[in-house]
Amino acid sequence: MNGKMIGKLLGFLLLLECLFLFPPALISILDREQTALRAIFTTMALSAGAGILLWSLCRKAQGRFYAREGFLITGLGWIVLSAVGALPFWLSREIPRYIDAFFETVSGFTTTGASILSNVEAMSRGLLFWRSFTHWLGGMGILVFLLAVVPMGKGGYSVHLLRAESPGPSVSKLVPKLRQTAAILYLIYIALTVLNVLFLLAGKMPLFDSLCTAFGTAGTGGFGIKNNSMAGYSPYLQTVCTVFMALFGINFAVYFLILLGKFRQALRSEELGVYLSIMLGSIAIITVDVLPIYGGSVRAALHDAAFSVSSVMTTTGFATADFNLWPQLSRSILVVLMVVGACAGSTGGGIKCARIVLLFKSLGARMRQMLHPRSVNLVQVEGHTVGEETLQGVNTYMTAYCAIGVISLLILSLDNFSLETNLTAVLACLNNIGPGLDMVGPTGNYAMFSDLSKLTLILNMLLGRLEIFPLLFLLSPRTWTRASN
Amino acid sequence: MNGKMIGKLLGFLLLLECLFLFPPALISILDREQTALRAIFTTMALSAGAGILLWSLCRKAQGRFYAREGFLITGLGWIVLSAVGALPFWLSREIPRYIDAFFETVSGFTTTGASILSNVEAMSRGLLFWRSFTHWLGGMGILVFLLAVVPMGKGGYSVHLLRAESPGPSVSKLVPKLRQTAAILYLIYIALTVLNVLFLLAGKMPLFDSLCTAFGTAGTGGFGIKNNSMAGYSPYLQTVCTVFMALFGINFAVYFLILLGKFRQALRSEELGVYLSIMLGSIAIITVDVLPIYGGSVRAALHDAAFSVSSVMTTTGFATADFNLWPQLSRSILVVLMVVGACAGSTGGGIKCARIVLLFKSLGARMRQMLHPRSVNLVQVEGHTVGEETLQGVNTYMTAYCAIGVISLLILSLDNFSLETNLTAVLACLNNIGPGLDMVGPTGNYAMFSDLSKLTLILNMLLGRLEIFPLLFLLSPRTWTRASN
Repeated sequence: MNGKMIGKLLGFLLLLECLFLFPPALISILDREQTALRAIFTTMALSAGAGILLWSLCRKAQGRFYAREGFLITGLGWIVLSAVGALPFWLSREIPRYIDAFFETVSGFTTTGASILSNVEAMSRGLLFWRSFTHWLGGMGILVFLLAVVPMGKGGYSVHLLRAESPGPSVSKLVPKLRQTAAILYLIYIALTVLNVLFLLAGKMPLFDSLCTAFGTAGTGGFGIKNNSMAGYSPYLQTVCTVFMALFGINFAVYFLILLGKFRQALRSEELGVYLSIMLGSIAIITVDVLPIYGGSVRAALHDAAFSVSSVMTTTGFATADFNLWPQLSRSILVVLMVVGACAGSTGGGIKCARIVLLFKSLGARMRQMLHPRSVNLVQVEGHTVGEETLQGVNTYMTAYCAIGVISLLILSLDNFSLETNLTAVLACLNNIGPGLDMVGPTGNYAMFSDLSKLTLILNMLLGRLEIFPLLFLLSPRTWTRASN
Repeated sequence: MNGKMIGKLLGFLLLLECLFLFPPALISILDREQTALRAIFTTMALSAGAGILLWSLCRKAQGRFYAREGFLITGLGWIVLSAVGALPFWLSREIPRYIDAFFETVSGFTTTGASILSNVEAMSRGLLFWRSFTHWLGGMGILVFLLAVVPMGKGGYSVHLLRAESPGPSVSKLVPKLRQTAAILYLIYIALTVLNVLFLLAGKMPLFDSLCTAFGTAGTGGFGIKNNSMAGYSPYLQTVCTVFMALFGINFAVYFLILLGKFRQALRSEELGVYLSIMLGSIAIITVDVLPIYGGSVRAALHDAAFSVSSVMTTTGFATADFNLWPQLSRSILVVLMVVGACAGSTGGGIKCARIVLLFKSLGARMRQMLHPRSVNLVQVEGHTVGEETLQGVNTYMTAYCAIGVISLLILSLDNFSLETNLTAVLACLNNIGPGLDMVGPTGNYAMFSDLSKLTLILNMLLGRLEIFPLLFLLSPRTWTRASN
């Protein structure tokens, strides 16, 4: 194991985190929030100090960097970033218990949006900004950022980082050079975020609100800065949100193709077709289902149905209506959408439409094989044959996903809340959505869970965001034994 | 497609069903239940008439018989058997609506044990016997029975029948000849059932009750003949039931090895180890969890915990306690056990321990592969390498299983009952268990569902018992088009 290399990259990450804390510090200065500012500065100092120390100790790291190191640095990196990022909330006493602050920060970086706060409006603006900013940072990936901005020297390790942090069954390099791929991804991300802010400002949303909302939308995170999430904003602003949530759930490779003028190729994406079909179909069914609640107003029902579907399927988690009170069909559809999730290569979570497509295509191929044992049945997506390894990967992922869900459900059951609460809490965290149903519905929060359950859910959020394996390797004793070197 | 061969076998099955109706007819004669008797006789006449007609029309069937025909005859056979088997309930007006009678009969043959009846004690003894007898017939498989008793001439089709009807990821032939395998399976089945009856009689259970209870236990079905299921019987009788349910959940190949004196080989079964570990572990945890409800009496808590775990994990569904009222941890464990199920090659349902073992072994192999991309990682069970095809089969099965579960959940949601009711109803039917939680808990029943939901659950029971594919092929338009010939 190349421990020095891991130390060097961790040092880098801590220095980056210090930089990331500048904007919230600036807001706290402008708003004269002394306690928050002191907490932020202390964290920046700690973060920079630890970063420089690690960096100078491991500066001369050399040598090979394998898949294992890629997984480890990703898993460790996210935990360290969250642990340090939680300090401002805790030091300022705005979140009195550290485990709650950690929960909130992991929820932020993993773009989950699950909260233990019942009154977000009581928080200082600086920390509210930091809370939303973590969504934006975590959305595209922090190691992807590292790849984009820091020259890392030669060495084939970049692909291991990108692979470990990127969502979806396979990594699509947009251009041959990884560093450029990372940079392009971030540029598209920034451009779309700016566009989102402009549309919100056009609807007369204050700048601070616009920035925080855009961060939550872009990262498909869902932390709101109002106690009623998005319910208090105008229908226009809600519609902007609906559209941008859906946009950020699309594979960024599609935007890259559009930028290159390859519209036909962009529209040929099978995943995009499946994503939009599921989304529009769900909106249509839910609109009809909730119509009686809206006194027969199709417009109002459609508005809230579209917002909720877009929010849940992209795993954002903003809310305009309390879908916990909707009829059972709509609630069940939302639970299914939680699991399906957005597109691979987007900022959204869930199993991802690409995996669903692959699973159903293998099912079809396998059924043809069963009827005609001597025929050859390959799985094809967009004209290309999908390799056995990718298919195996998807199946392994599903097994691990189910196993983690089951174990987490059992641990949460110790708190003796309802099956619906526990099940949707696990699904909402593992898929990085935020709100679930029953006690963790849009008007509820996660404060009532025991510390053990909170730790379990924290782990679920990290497992979901990093797509299980980086963290699973980190927790596996085999990784740490010499024998497996 | 070899339609004549399918017709011939269907004719056989209908004649068999006429024979199967003799014992309940006898009981109705002894108990002078005229209405029930008339209904049974009418069904026997119809069944025999249709059987002879089909048989004489297709008697000269010849030619090859492929996997497709094997799936089709299995799927069709089970539907026809259930449709005809439902007639006595409906003709006698003991179950006034045909869809309910069909639900009850499918639930019987598939050994699910889900009931639409709230007062079983009001039924005639002849039909009560028939209801329990369907469990016993469906448990080992009706086509397996056909294979065992009817000389089918030469032709390689028998393996397709056994494969389509037998539970588990792969068929283990006990002896080289299929017909002998089927006969041995049935002999073990009969011997164990007789043993079960003897143990029940020793506890002073009346003969009629003993037979019906043993049928429900042997088939891991769970239809009771008392309104409170097994709660009214003595602790000794309940314990007999606990032990025999667990025994019938074990792969029958293990018993065959024991009969041959190969004890060491029998005990080396990895699936058996996993099955027993999960069962004993769950009993231990639930005993501790429910202790307060039993006033701290370990003996009483252990007694009901063991019964419920054995009942749910083997997918039998008998009840002594209303586990719907237990703490959330116990309830969640039971839901997980519903999905896990018993051993492959037993009469129990669920995903089966063998598949769980394979899924986790592939997960492990795949993780080693991810860390060391150039290493070779094969999946081994009991010293043998598992083929890629079997692993793919398990994965395909899981995909189909999840998809069916999700679609069924959405359809049931239309009735607007709770998520817990809908989810556990689907799981209880798809895994052939019987009772779920909430409204379909041990003290509830399935009567309140709409006809659409009942049809969905009927399909789930058949899909679960036949392990999805025979029925999926039957429903697939591709199977019926000429192009795929």
